[in-house]
Amino acid sequence: MTASGTIRVFEHSIRIPYAHTDQMGMVYYANYFVYFEMARSEMLREAGIPYAELERRGVLLPVVEARCEYRKPARYDDLLLIRSRCTEIHGPRLHIEYEVSRNGDLIAEGHTEHVCMTPQGRVLKPVPEIRSLAGGIRQPVSK
Amino acid sequence: MTASGTIRVFEHSIRIPYAHTDQMGMVYYANYFVYFEMARSEMLREAGIPYAELERRGVLLPVVEARCEYRKPARYDDLLLIRSRCTEIHGPRLHIEYEVSRNGDLIAEGHTEHVCMTPQGRVLKPVPEIRSLAGGIRQPVSK
Amino acid sequence: MTASGTIRVFEHSIRIPYAHTDQMGMVYYANYFVYFEMARSEMLREAGIPYAELERRGVLLPVVEARCEYRKPARYDDLLLIRSRCTEIHGPRLHIEYEVSRNGDLIAEGHTEHVCMTPQGRVLKPVPEIRSLAGGIRQPVSK
Amino acid sequence: MTASGTIRVFEHSIRIPYAHTDQMGMVYYANYFVYFEMARSEMLREAGIPYAELERRGVLLPVVEARCEYRKPARYDDLLLIRSRCTEIHGPRLHIEYEVSRNGDLIAEGHTEHVCMTPQGRVLKPVPEIRSLAGGIRQPVSK
Repeated sequence: MTASGTIRVFEHSIRIPYAHTDQMGMVYYANYFVYFEMARSEMLREAGIPYAELERRGVLLPVVEARCEYRKPARYDDLLLIRSRCTEIHGPRLHIEYEVSRNGDLIAEGHTEHVCMTPQGRVLKPVPEIRSLAGGIRQPVSK
Repeated sequence: MTASGTIRVFEHSIRIPYAHTDQMGMVYYANYFVYFEMARSEMLREAGIPYAELERRGVLLPVVEARCEYRKPARYDDLLLIRSRCTEIHGPRLHIEYEVSRNGDLIAEGHTEHVCMTPQGRVLKPVPEIRSLAGGIRQPVSK
Repeated sequence: MTASGTIRVFEHSIRIPYAHTDQMGMVYYANYFVYFEMARSEMLREAGIPYAELERRGVLLPVVEARCEYRKPARYDDLLLIRSRCTEIHGPRLHIEYEVSRNGDLIAEGHTEHVCMTPQGRVLKPVPEIRSLAGGIRQPVSK
Repeated sequence: MTASGTIRVFEHSIRIPYAHTDQMGMVYYANYFVYFEMARSEMLREAGIPYAELERRGVLLPVVEARCEYRKPARYDDLLLIRSRCTEIHGPRLHIEYEVSRNGDLIAEGHTEHVCMTPQGRVLKPVPEIRSLAGGIRQPVSK
């Protein structure tokens, strides 16, 4: 398999609120999945198809899998950089990868997997703006 | 004004998750409003009209005002008791009061104010099950 | 009572994540208190005394009271403007007011009240950078 | 490798608050990691070593990896059952698995991985109460 284009990388910055810390003095682990969503949301906006607009067109992207590895603690008031890329599209499924860093230090990395569907649950092929994120439609190639 | 019945008091217990602590080592202040909601939800269930059922009937209770006073810090793993009462109903508005305590010690107290409305935003008189919470319909009385 | 200076107004913008919506399709009410905190945090940074720095100096600002009135629903992906002002300082207490708007429309307004204290719970007079927020030290004046 | 005992399974029930829904009308994906924490916390309490007590003894269990697969949507007011088991202990690392169900229907499943350490970051062997969760100390065996 190969792609006709290249995978685009998006960057989004997030300032950690006190709300997200816990009594260990670090960001509570579930919050990273909110940061992933915020980065994903900006990725879709920059790709020309804000998620709010997708929903209005009757396309949802529910999460079917999520994973995060925690490398170093993030702390209150840290300015984190989230780098996200849609690395793979298979039928209705999207695979998005995230790297969270602070001043070049890797804090966490992970991915989410989504299925394109209607509000009624019918699966859909991703719209062209989404396919362009992963470098276009993947084509089988002879080796 | 008086009411035909008495105001019922409801009790609900909540165990504090680590997620709700902050780096001061206490429960982050916004979480108390989630505890209020959990107590309110149980209050409606016990009154025979679970909120999920209300929504199915086309009745929403959006919050129009919320307030909390913090007396003592609550901490991770505390078992808090939330005591709630619907103290007043005026037309479509409900006033609900909450007391949060731990082993008899007052931790916080506050209220929320709600308006009964349809999903389209038309205001409604509260259903009888809700009116019964505040002791029935309030009647003007001569002194 | 009067103040030697003027009350400064601070502005901070927040993009609503999907995480903060609820099944009514609007921002869940408790999240506004997180927006208040984010605005407050930026206010302190702009005043030259980031909250993280205050904590390192041994000064905490726990919330003793919080209140919000909800005027219109905010929705996913809205860009909200939070305008905040520290309107009053009495001994160790600070009163901060917030207005949340979207394109000039008032969405919510509220306040928080804080007490300056050490981690050990001893109350403190606010540091000069905080007092400057409210226009300096309030002085009793003859009329 | 084998274990001297058997792996214990723990069960914990959680009622979904409105706070955890999103505008798709389901539980927002990050909240499952809070449910995992609540189940984990009860698991440690039942094993005789509440996490609050562990922290007082100077033992922390920060999460180094977390993963969840979402099978079916959970909704407001659902009563979810979380089944958790500590399936593996390797040196200072614990692997805990979770299954979330509603009336026997699988809603989600996932795991978290933790490292036992001091607040200063020195890794530790899990205390006996934790080791007992996974059926005791794992021993190399000849086949």
